[in-house]
Amino acid sequence: MRSELARALASVVPPPTVLDDEESLRPFETDAFIMRRALPLLAAIPDSEAQVPGIIRACRERGVPVVTRGAGTGISGGAIPHEQGALLVMARMRNILSVDALARTAVVEPGVRNLAVSEAAAPHGLFYAPDPSSQSVCSIGGNVAENSGGVHCLKYGFTTQNICALRAYDGTGERLDLGSEALDAPGYDLMALMTGSEGNLGVITRITVRLVPLPEATETLLATFPSVRAAAEAVGEIIGAGIIPAALEMMDRIVIDACEQFMGLGFPKDGEALLLVEVDGGREDVDDAFARLRSILETCGAIEIRAANDERERAELWRARKGAFTALANIHPDYYTIDGTIPRRCLADVLDRTVALAKEYGLVVGNVFHAGDGNIHPCIFYDASVPGDLEKSEALGARVLEICIEVGGTITGEHGVGIEKLRQMCQQFRAPEIAAFHAVKHAFDPEGILNPGKAVPTLKRCAEWGGMHVRSGAIPHPEIPRF
Amino acid sequence: MRSELARALASVVPPPTVLDDEESLRPFETDAFIMRRALPLLAAIPDSEAQVPGIIRACRERGVPVVTRGAGTGISGGAIPHEQGALLVMARMRNILSVDALARTAVVEPGVRNLAVSEAAAPHGLFYAPDPSSQSVCSIGGNVAENSGGVHCLKYGFTTQNICALRAYDGTGERLDLGSEALDAPGYDLMALMTGSEGNLGVITRITVRLVPLPEATETLLATFPSVRAAAEAVGEIIGAGIIPAALEMMDRIVIDACEQFMGLGFPKDGEALLLVEVDGGREDVDDAFARLRSILETCGAIEIRAANDERERAELWRARKGAFTALANIHPDYYTIDGTIPRRCLADVLDRTVALAKEYGLVVGNVFHAGDGNIHPCIFYDASVPGDLEKSEALGARVLEICIEVGGTITGEHGVGIEKLRQMCQQFRAPEIAAFHAVKHAFDPEGILNPGKAVPTLKRCAEWGGMHVRSGAIPHPEIPRF
Repeated sequence: MRSELARALASVVPPPTVLDDEESLRPFETDAFIMRRALPLLAAIPDSEAQVPGIIRACRERGVPVVTRGAGTGISGGAIPHEQGALLVMARMRNILSVDALARTAVVEPGVRNLAVSEAAAPHGLFYAPDPSSQSVCSIGGNVAENSGGVHCLKYGFTTQNICALRAYDGTGERLDLGSEALDAPGYDLMALMTGSEGNLGVITRITVRLVPLPEATETLLATFPSVRAAAEAVGEIIGAGIIPAALEMMDRIVIDACEQFMGLGFPKDGEALLLVEVDGGREDVDDAFARLRSILETCGAIEIRAANDERERAELWRARKGAFTALANIHPDYYTIDGTIPRRCLADVLDRTVALAKEYGLVVGNVFHAGDGNIHPCIFYDASVPGDLEKSEALGARVLEICIEVGGTITGEHGVGIEKLRQMCQQFRAPEIAAFHAVKHAFDPEGILNPGKAVPTLKRCAEWGGMHVRSGAIPHPEIPRF
Repeated sequence: MRSELARALASVVPPPTVLDDEESLRPFETDAFIMRRALPLLAAIPDSEAQVPGIIRACRERGVPVVTRGAGTGISGGAIPHEQGALLVMARMRNILSVDALARTAVVEPGVRNLAVSEAAAPHGLFYAPDPSSQSVCSIGGNVAENSGGVHCLKYGFTTQNICALRAYDGTGERLDLGSEALDAPGYDLMALMTGSEGNLGVITRITVRLVPLPEATETLLATFPSVRAAAEAVGEIIGAGIIPAALEMMDRIVIDACEQFMGLGFPKDGEALLLVEVDGGREDVDDAFARLRSILETCGAIEIRAANDERERAELWRARKGAFTALANIHPDYYTIDGTIPRRCLADVLDRTVALAKEYGLVVGNVFHAGDGNIHPCIFYDASVPGDLEKSEALGARVLEICIEVGGTITGEHGVGIEKLRQMCQQFRAPEIAAFHAVKHAFDPEGILNPGKAVPTLKRCAEWGGMHVRSGAIPHPEIPRF
């Protein structure tokens, strides 16, 4: 099949680059969900949109799965190859086709790096708001596929709120132009549907992103708290006061120590939690909000408040936050990052419960996350050389996600389902919703060749796993091992 | 069928109110698209969500279409009854179930009036942003079904950006819980898909809306311009300067005169166009933006600028804008309002072309619209007593929408497709997109009982109309009569 498919792809006009030897394919065997690896039959690398429908059709005619890959920075395994499938690598489609300052839009190819969009918009006083930690390397196409967030999504929204049009090719190779550069579009909102569909409904080849004006002023501060609970309560007070920070991040002692050891930023040595808060907008309003913010933080028991005095200090603060996962990896080589969302009011309770659960499992958990969004990222540390430790970390992670569902949250804020969270989808949703997902998938990809086995579990698998739906209720899950 | 279905509905627990005599049904024969009327078989009026799946199933078992109706204020005919169908009237499901100030959300039933949500949120310093002109009477369920906009959507977004969770029942009566009160939700974004689907994919029974903080300060002004073109150019300058007004509306002389005659507000007597601009936010930033705004308006040739001095004057200005359509109806009893979107940069050109086209057709057009959004609403005046005049106005409207598509815009900004714009859907979209809409519809409503014949035309109808897709190109449409 491999050589037959390679020949068929060679007849696409113009032919895409095709890699089909093991050595060339090795770098593509996983994405940032490194727990799982697979080599595809081959990789097809188009230079332009014109090649995409031909690639899809060649695969479809042969019943060969197509897995689309952006920069491979996804951490739920959405771009892990299918062993019997083609990997469609969008890395070479990286042209910024236009920037329209009046319309505040840019049209880009999927392989364009996230940060490159803001760089291209900067001369017009504009930027592209969603900023995942991986923004210097991750691609816009991948961002759309995963509906990526970032530290500034509290104020500016997710990817889906920051794009206005898409071009995609469905599982039959048909072109779909969705959304509009003008406001709104008629018909069902297939653009929003395609966004976050994890490569299951179409291959995205062109994206019109919204750009927003660079704020006149930005102020950033770091507040130290004696406990995670005190920091979490401060988050509620800030939001309750009507302040909408551009970012509102939390780090606990374990993460602070790791950052300190790795980057030596001179972070406060006492306290159990830090809040990193940024406010942006017009000069006067920022000053006003910043003053109110300080007063709230003090009232909530902050031990120390440090404001960045200039752009350099501000960049240092963000370096710590954006480098936190790398810092953790340096100190604790094996860890498993959970991505769940909860209503903000549950923040302190859920963090406490996570710590208590970790003790029960004999594991340690560090926290660095989007507190303002209620998007938690507990990092569970384990030792891969200890038999059973990985499984224990996964079981603990599953318990944490159950708690997220129980309090009215979700099993993923911004990392996607991929292959990592298929089981949790059965907990998040009831059978009719899972069935609706499959029916929608069928509408775009009748043969199911696009990224099969990712993002949405089959109802059969859910049944095998024990029909685990819970929502705001008690969770009896004997099939998940408890240690 | 009528009496048999009425008996079946009587066995729903608890039974909904059923109206099946002509006199009772007469008030429901049309919505605000009064050009078309039809009496349904019967109307079913549930008091609670529990009755909804039973009503859908009773209809489905008999192959009876279900048309859902909110307040009936839609102006594209989406809620016009089906002669062989049941009308599902949501007017009695009007409980505000909860308001959560910390989460900034409210959970409401579909029959709740738009304005009632903001009234309930006001004690918490919050409001619900989307504000259609009909906000004092239209319902949230209808707003979701149509993805309604309003004068403040320029800054705050459409309905789809202002809700976070939905409960709906699909065409088989299955309950779907979509979205999440926490940030983001996994799986395909069926909540966004349901929003704006015009009653075709499900019956919405519960909506969690987002609330936003009431702004500290609001300033509103009226600027008079010597020409529509000058006003349109000022719109571009305002946006280009990085100001994001809360509202940016335009009215031309014809509409100003009608408002003046109807409401006697003492509007400027000279000038050909007015801009109504509102800025909100923190006190200092509003003052700063307002000063910049005045300076831009002066530079762009404003003849007169009047700022509202207090809340009463501000309310007067908005009374004119929100009452404009009523004022027009008072002066020109017969008119046809077009709803199209265009990129802002095309505003002046498209308005000029509309005036020129109207002359060609021997008709007069007035303009009152969301200029900042590029959402135009030309009102075409005709005389229903003159044979052929209505048809001329419809033909002119169709030409205007073609121009919207040609310049990269869309055939509807906020009023929906309903039955009014089925033909234009064939122009906006190519066959693969229309086919994708139908495939998605099938996923939720396999028998096609939900609002059949609305929102999306069949490919067959598009073919009969001449396969009229145009996008950014010339439009040869011999089948639309030209006068």
